[in-house]
Amino acid sequence: MRDCFEIVDKDLLGRVGRLKTRRGVVETPALAPVINPGLNVVPPREVAELGYGLLMTNAYLIKRRYGDVALEMGVHGLLGVETPIMTDSGAYQLMEYGEVEVKPLEIVEYQVKLGSDIGVILDIPTRHGGSRETVAREVEETIRRAREALEVDRGDMLLVGPVQGGVYLDIVARAARELAKLDYDIYAVGGPVQLMENYNYRELVRLVMTAKMNLPPGKPLHLFGAGNPHMLALAVAMGVDLFDSASYALYARDGRYMTPHGVYRLEDLGDLPCECPICSKLSVDELREMPYQERVYRLALHNLYVLRAELRRIRNAIREGSLWELLELRARSHPSLLQALREYERYVAFIERHHPVARGVVSGLFFYDEVSRGRPEVYRHLHRLRERYTPPPADALLLALETEVKPFSRFGWIAELAKAVAGDALLRERVHVVVASAAYGVVPLELDSTYPLSQYESAIDMDEPRAAAALASDVAWFVRGLGRYRLAVVVYEARHEAAAVEIVKRLRRAGLRAFLRPFTSVGDTLAFLKLVLALSQPHT
Amino acid sequence: MRDCFEIVDKDLLGRVGRLKTRRGVVETPALAPVINPGLNVVPPREVAELGYGLLMTNAYLIKRRYGDVALEMGVHGLLGVETPIMTDSGAYQLMEYGEVEVKPLEIVEYQVKLGSDIGVILDIPTRHGGSRETVAREVEETIRRAREALEVDRGDMLLVGPVQGGVYLDIVARAARELAKLDYDIYAVGGPVQLMENYNYRELVRLVMTAKMNLPPGKPLHLFGAGNPHMLALAVAMGVDLFDSASYALYARDGRYMTPHGVYRLEDLGDLPCECPICSKLSVDELREMPYQERVYRLALHNLYVLRAELRRIRNAIREGSLWELLELRARSHPSLLQALREYERYVAFIERHHPVARGVVSGLFFYDEVSRGRPEVYRHLHRLRERYTPPPADALLLALETEVKPFSRFGWIAELAKAVAGDALLRERVHVVVASAAYGVVPLELDSTYPLSQYESAIDMDEPRAAAALASDVAWFVRGLGRYRLAVVVYEARHEAAAVEIVKRLRRAGLRAFLRPFTSVGDTLAFLKLVLALSQPHT
Repeated sequence: MRDCFEIVDKDLLGRVGRLKTRRGVVETPALAPVINPGLNVVPPREVAELGYGLLMTNAYLIKRRYGDVALEMGVHGLLGVETPIMTDSGAYQLMEYGEVEVKPLEIVEYQVKLGSDIGVILDIPTRHGGSRETVAREVEETIRRAREALEVDRGDMLLVGPVQGGVYLDIVARAARELAKLDYDIYAVGGPVQLMENYNYRELVRLVMTAKMNLPPGKPLHLFGAGNPHMLALAVAMGVDLFDSASYALYARDGRYMTPHGVYRLEDLGDLPCECPICSKLSVDELREMPYQERVYRLALHNLYVLRAELRRIRNAIREGSLWELLELRARSHPSLLQALREYERYVAFIERHHPVARGVVSGLFFYDEVSRGRPEVYRHLHRLRERYTPPPADALLLALETEVKPFSRFGWIAELAKAVAGDALLRERVHVVVASAAYGVVPLELDSTYPLSQYESAIDMDEPRAAAALASDVAWFVRGLGRYRLAVVVYEARHEAAAVEIVKRLRRAGLRAFLRPFTSVGDTLAFLKLVLALSQPHT
Repeated sequence: MRDCFEIVDKDLLGRVGRLKTRRGVVETPALAPVINPGLNVVPPREVAELGYGLLMTNAYLIKRRYGDVALEMGVHGLLGVETPIMTDSGAYQLMEYGEVEVKPLEIVEYQVKLGSDIGVILDIPTRHGGSRETVAREVEETIRRAREALEVDRGDMLLVGPVQGGVYLDIVARAARELAKLDYDIYAVGGPVQLMENYNYRELVRLVMTAKMNLPPGKPLHLFGAGNPHMLALAVAMGVDLFDSASYALYARDGRYMTPHGVYRLEDLGDLPCECPICSKLSVDELREMPYQERVYRLALHNLYVLRAELRRIRNAIREGSLWELLELRARSHPSLLQALREYERYVAFIERHHPVARGVVSGLFFYDEVSRGRPEVYRHLHRLRERYTPPPADALLLALETEVKPFSRFGWIAELAKAVAGDALLRERVHVVVASAAYGVVPLELDSTYPLSQYESAIDMDEPRAAAALASDVAWFVRGLGRYRLAVVVYEARHEAAAVEIVKRLRRAGLRAFLRPFTSVGDTLAFLKLVLALSQPHT
């Protein structure tokens, strides 16, 4: 077992890593631009000089075209670069044309002889729309080939084992578990091209997450054929470390212009909305009027700049711990990406286990709406409250609705109130101060300086019916789970009456004596607390 | 009255325009980088060569430093460019230091003599936190100065009249109405620096929209001191055509690095997430290790590239009619921008009046959630249904819950159902087919090929309680408003039962006999329709 992958930074399931190949280290997440051995839209050397530390080409096509002659030059000689190169096995051609003229072991051996740094076995990619029986049978054959391929002496070449199964998630899970038993250097998720072409990112999330959850977490994961910049962040957040894509060139040939948040047709653009070295020197008219080959070359370079910048953005986000924020941003590139993000949130329990506790750069978390509440920090907080939290022995809950100033225990009227309660002999032992937060649900005041409970900025409107219902439900869950309060007073700024009313309703339904009290002064709240405590004295 | 502004394209309240100055046309929306006459972070010529068609400098500072000597060279000689130049009057210094050593008329005359292409009167910027009385008095003085300044012979110089008033919206409205009576070439909204520094974009929306609604719509509007790229799209969507900002240089001096969705500290970046000519040739370490002056110069250039690209993005969005999509994207840069977008939606009735009916590039509208439903197309559709729509004379409403395939009248089971109803002698005259759409509320089937009612992609989950309630409320409003149906059948795919149940509840509450029927086949729905029609025959 070779240890070729080092994880440097983590965020969600994403990581910044270093993949060691015999030709040097590849910084991940990395996208390997596909070089068509017969048709260079951009010369491989130029692609490498742009900072792409890994290139992808097709060993099967090289074998068919040049046969053993290519072995003398080696794949690096053929492409004219010393950059690490990954080679594909013809599996894509197998999917497209139904057959290939090469045997599974033969193409692995050919890749070794070609001097490929990363080879791929000849798996059977799952076709879109295949029946369950066909897919199951093909996946068994892929697993068999994966076992067999390990018998080849691959020297220093890293080998990729692809997980297939498409929409049949139980088959995907089985494939991943079987491959996990084998000593692959890199795993891959295969066959999502049609899903991505149709923007079916929700299904893609199911596929990749199912594979991820059943593969060794420390190994690098490759996603085949993902080349639209707007979905790279989501893929990385699912634990994908490597991509390969010909999109930069295919789009260019088709007159399509990438941006971080989607792809435009060149003819629809009035200005080039980009700062790259191509676009900053050209007008859109100059680009349109160029001869075809020149235009394709420049468009392809532009696309490579856009992909590179997105990968850098993703790496920065992982380092500073803001990958979630990037997901929410990219989810506004297309409705299908928001649907995919909502699907991703269903895996929060798994994500939370791998998500780091601290961020690289300590800055506030952003909460926009219910989708933001799907982030692992919220799940983690509520989970910890449930599993580990013991509140002080009080019989009255003083629930304060969150203010804009934070931490609540230090600033604003909540802090004053808490101080007054703590200083009052009658109330000190009987009242527990808790903040109702539209972001985190409930924050016991004694915890609110724990990161990240008071480091957030929220645009959640807690008085909007859905947010109010969610908040009330979190509060009721907290109270029921602890089961020790006899009564609750909800204190709030007058503008948040809608949320307060909803919370009191839910608390009453949960069997608690609950009271509403708009905040006017510390004295008023204290007097009110004393009154309800006196009135609700057990009659013993 | 000079007609210096031509509007070429419109979207929301934003426009692509051409501002004619004596030194040539400025394409808008335009941002004029502020050139400090004493301290060029980037030489003015280089700024202009980047494509900035308008520069801003400060006539008051020039007067103080060089006095009448500057008049010989003129402002263009002083800056060494022939690009149109706008000059400020010292109003900012008045706000910062409480007084300036120049008289209002004197500085207007000085700007004329200096050869400024666009001058600004010496208004009194509203300070943050000023009392209502002070602000009202200062605004009256600004109005007086605005009247007086028009007496100066300004030759070809365009003159800017700033609207002040800060958070006192009635004062803002009055200032705008008074200035609207005067013959200013350009209007401006003043004094929002503190609002923007505190990210109080919600208050900024109130201020700018109040000014906009009271100013002549055809005149160009300037916003002082807006330089964070993430808020430019929102400002343009409020009708702002011109910006000036020193942020590119101020941020650079402070080690701050702009991106389209926010500003980073250089020391927090692991990679430069940008494709601009500066960043594509440098690593973050190389940039950090440069001598201070060199680093500031490069950071400032980078910031100028980012601002320029954002302006191009905005212009493209206006041309293709996707400015709303850009607003939703940018609203995920910071929670305060989402709050601002929600505030902006409150002005939808005004926005709709100016929003074009067709888009530059016909492509689908994106709907993500309730915020997306704030776009003027939704308001316009519902408003037209209310004001102009007459349904066919049917007494039964067949309400079909939207499908993914569109237009509904041509594809999928809704089309089949409608065809069968139209072909059935018993049902034809009695049944009206309407689609319940989570995006548009209700779409009478005979209208659904009208743009943009079937050109949309939606991620709104109509079964989620809030969306279901909103949809049910739109349906009930439609039925009540028309008041002619005796009964309704809600037909839906089984997975949308939650939405269907909510709608039926609301229809019953509105006094209609409403029935639920999951769609299984056209025959089943027709049979069910006939049954309920027979059972609900009036007993006459």
